[in-house]
Amino acid sequence: MEKKVLVETSARHVHINEETLKILFGDDAKLTFKKALSQPGQFAAEERVSIVGPRNTIHNVSILGPCRKNNQVEISLTDARTLGLDAPIRESGDIKGSIGCKIVGPKGEIDITEGVIVAKRHIHATPHDAEVLGLKDKQIVSVKINNDDRSLILGDVVVRVREDFALAMHIDTAEANAGGIKPNTYGEIIL
Amino acid sequence: MEKKVLVETSARHVHINEETLKILFGDDAKLTFKKALSQPGQFAAEERVSIVGPRNTIHNVSILGPCRKNNQVEISLTDARTLGLDAPIRESGDIKGSIGCKIVGPKGEIDITEGVIVAKRHIHATPHDAEVLGLKDKQIVSVKINNDDRSLILGDVVVRVREDFALAMHIDTAEANAGGIKPNTYGEIIL
Repeated sequence: MEKKVLVETSARHVHINEETLKILFGDDAKLTFKKALSQPGQFAAEERVSIVGPRNTIHNVSILGPCRKNNQVEISLTDARTLGLDAPIRESGDIKGSIGCKIVGPKGEIDITEGVIVAKRHIHATPHDAEVLGLKDKQIVSVKINNDDRSLILGDVVVRVREDFALAMHIDTAEANAGGIKPNTYGEIIL
Repeated sequence: MEKKVLVETSARHVHINEETLKILFGDDAKLTFKKALSQPGQFAAEERVSIVGPRNTIHNVSILGPCRKNNQVEISLTDARTLGLDAPIRESGDIKGSIGCKIVGPKGEIDITEGVIVAKRHIHATPHDAEVLGLKDKQIVSVKINNDDRSLILGDVVVRVREDFALAMHIDTAEANAGGIKPNTYGEIIL
């Protein structure tokens, strides 16, 4: 059986906690729903921030909601170079000992001491998806993408299994461009 | 035998012809040698230009010398989106029917009607290299890159064989970042 997965591109974005939301957007601020994402309950918010590194600032960065426990800034390696930040390649949530930055909103700003990462490419799956596809949580797989110009096989793809996930692979803009990946592209999981 | 090749990252750059050099930098202009490139006789010049598309401008773009017969602007797919240009993925020199842009220098500017491409990933080789590695001109191969975080296999790599080449693989910044590729990285050619 061919093991197929939808490949989605994550542009740079931030996750913030309630405290940071208040600092950046004011005491009564709430994240405004703009667009649903593939993962259940997750959404892109209308609110935007700037990310400031020692070398440059990137403006107009999306916030993904709802608020989380920890602030996390997910950028590409290209962004990391632009900002002048030596951000590590990590799984979402694994921010300990990563690098910090300044986040600027319309009402205030905050310096975070860690939380800036380049997301490790990954597949979200429910326990049912995982069973059907023969995958386990934290398994490392490869994903093959076929097209006319920029076919590739991405290795070091980590599988994350959780009841509240939906089946999708997430890659960053560099990975998407390296594979010439357009919307509605499916990859083949290789064990 | 393992078939190894040095993987080099090409940042965005332009090639210009003598006429364009005069328009952009003045009648007496010459390209000023800054840094030798891996391909014999090729160099990065001190002179810089801006590339203007319908959506944005990218400043401070390198010129590679010496001057060529045709103007050619090589950008990444990320740049193409930034500029608002639907640039095709092509081999260097294959610019017919590609897309145009404005190139701006300190003394003047020029609108080119074609010549903007996203370079197809490729390997330069001499006839001797090709013989040793068992490669032919225009052959399509894959190249495997191993590391801890972002291993990948790049498909659709075109081999170009010419007496005045030196053995090296050229990829763009998106491809380099997708593979977490650092200086002095070698890839393994897979036939």
